[in-house]
Amino acid sequence: MPNPMDTIRILVTGGTFDKEYNELTGELYFQSTHTNDMLRLGRCLLEVEIETLMMIDSLQMTAADRALILERCRAVPETRIVVTHGTDTMAETAAVLGAANTRKTIILTGAMIPYTFGSSDGMFNLGTALAFVQTLGEGVYVAMNGQCFPWDSVRKNKSMGIFESVDLDTRRLS
Amino acid sequence: MPNPMDTIRILVTGGTFDKEYNELTGELYFQSTHTNDMLRLGRCLLEVEIETLMMIDSLQMTAADRALILERCRAVPETRIVVTHGTDTMAETAAVLGAANTRKTIILTGAMIPYTFGSSDGMFNLGTALAFVQTLGEGVYVAMNGQCFPWDSVRKNKSMGIFESVDLDTRRLS
Amino acid sequence: MPNPMDTIRILVTGGTFDKEYNELTGELYFQSTHTNDMLRLGRCLLEVEIETLMMIDSLQMTAADRALILERCRAVPETRIVVTHGTDTMAETAAVLGAANTRKTIILTGAMIPYTFGSSDGMFNLGTALAFVQTLGEGVYVAMNGQCFPWDSVRKNKSMGIFESVDLDTRRLS
Amino acid sequence: MPNPMDTIRILVTGGTFDKEYNELTGELYFQSTHTNDMLRLGRCLLEVEIETLMMIDSLQMTAADRALILERCRAVPETRIVVTHGTDTMAETAAVLGAANTRKTIILTGAMIPYTFGSSDGMFNLGTALAFVQTLGEGVYVAMNGQCFPWDSVRKNKSMGIFESVDLDTRRLS
Repeated sequence: MPNPMDTIRILVTGGTFDKEYNELTGELYFQSTHTNDMLRLGRCLLEVEIETLMMIDSLQMTAADRALILERCRAVPETRIVVTHGTDTMAETAAVLGAANTRKTIILTGAMIPYTFGSSDGMFNLGTALAFVQTLGEGVYVAMNGQCFPWDSVRKNKSMGIFESVDLDTRRLS
Repeated sequence: MPNPMDTIRILVTGGTFDKEYNELTGELYFQSTHTNDMLRLGRCLLEVEIETLMMIDSLQMTAADRALILERCRAVPETRIVVTHGTDTMAETAAVLGAANTRKTIILTGAMIPYTFGSSDGMFNLGTALAFVQTLGEGVYVAMNGQCFPWDSVRKNKSMGIFESVDLDTRRLS
Repeated sequence: MPNPMDTIRILVTGGTFDKEYNELTGELYFQSTHTNDMLRLGRCLLEVEIETLMMIDSLQMTAADRALILERCRAVPETRIVVTHGTDTMAETAAVLGAANTRKTIILTGAMIPYTFGSSDGMFNLGTALAFVQTLGEGVYVAMNGQCFPWDSVRKNKSMGIFESVDLDTRRLS
Repeated sequence: MPNPMDTIRILVTGGTFDKEYNELTGELYFQSTHTNDMLRLGRCLLEVEIETLMMIDSLQMTAADRALILERCRAVPETRIVVTHGTDTMAETAAVLGAANTRKTIILTGAMIPYTFGSSDGMFNLGTALAFVQTLGEGVYVAMNGQCFPWDSVRKNKSMGIFESVDLDTRRLS
């Protein structure tokens, strides 16, 4: 296991994870990240550095946004990075980061239900992501549904709202 | 990484994790485990087998109880096991399991706040435990506060309500 | 006070009160009313009859919808009625019901935050509405923000997300 | 209806309403009242004056404590008072206040589940209490379970955890 005192970088990009409900308009929107609150609630004592890169729905994420995420993954001093991300295009961003071969351990995670709505899967997913990032070797992974998928064999099943392995699925079909 | 389709055994022993509030008496008590609810809330899709061994406060745990936990760790077919446990004597049980050298990966976890009280660290800890159990090799570990401690170098700091590494602490003092 | 055993009719029309989060689309929608859950959570022992008339955003409410609400207020045997309603046009519906002079006690209430989002004002408002409906005489009222406004002197201040008395406001300005 | 701008005095005495969970000891205890948080969450815009008289379990309440509550009910300038109180002896305190004939409207309320445990009946009860206190005439009442009981005909049914009318019960038995 890595030295638990090594700092983990958390790069925030938005996604359902951090959505809020605007009670004046009845719409969902982004304010600031809840990652700090969640870590406090989880009594997390890991040394983390939280950095908000953007606060957007991942369907709005552009190639330039992904380039920025990659750039920050490369530039930060930490070799262990968690990226919070909307689920809709999480696999695409993972592919960009994976193909770039940064020689770091990068875990993307997110949520299906906003943290502020009380019954969030975000706390659980953040827990898995922070554990995977400490124990896995170099590579880019998606941590969702308790599982950890390598970047080159994962996709979101949008009709079911879950992540699945592309390979596994192929095997099942054959 | 292990095959994500390998079943993980979750052995439930009670602890704050699963405490309930009795509104007639105003006291905390145990009913049945919330592990299933928590996994559903976390949208966890790992294959797990949940087995309740006991539902007790870990201060009440006896040598016989620990012998039973060890026996079940050995007897179950799974090689990856999560034990939910009260925090007060989690390190003692970890020591019993660790010394027995079961050749399995066993993660003990728990919570400072009951799941039913809404603001629980249980969801976060359960997430970390399920991730550590998939990625770590043989051994017995305590997963609390986002960290993972080997059984032979962990203790609960009861005045602060956190877990800490014995070695680390020694180094700090020297 | 009225006989507490007299049944209270609750007419459900939708509104933020009953909105849900669709985790597949990330949108808010209506399923079925949470009124029963809320009464159970509130340990409410009043005899109530819950009837869902529609499940809509009150901005979508038509004159025909309001005519139906009025018709049901008249037709039900109960003389004490609570109408759950979106806040945006609650005052308009109150005006339709008030002008009709049904000789019943009718309280409209709602919420700014969906009940399913955890931090709802719905529980509080439902409590006030059920108390006001037991104690006020014939008339139509809006119960929001802990207050009870007669139908002919209330409006929603949409920029602040609160209800206010029209008369009171006039007095303040003069 | 009374002028909604009249201030309501809220006298806090403790009770389950305000209990907290001490994560170091695993015990329930009192810190400071949550009444303000609850009113904010309920978007309550009534003018209230919150005063903490004591923070105790109502089973610990002495005659001297009740004398203090009565004294404050008399001394405060407001004629509309809500007393938050443990449920176990709420009826006893109501009887003391009721017999004293203060010529004010006094509503006692409380909760079966602590507010901090998420699924509290406290928000609902506080809503009913604040509505009853605005609409009822002079007298002392217990507001629980959505109902409002005069002080001289209410008791807690401890085996069921609910409040019931003494008279009503007599009628049922006859």
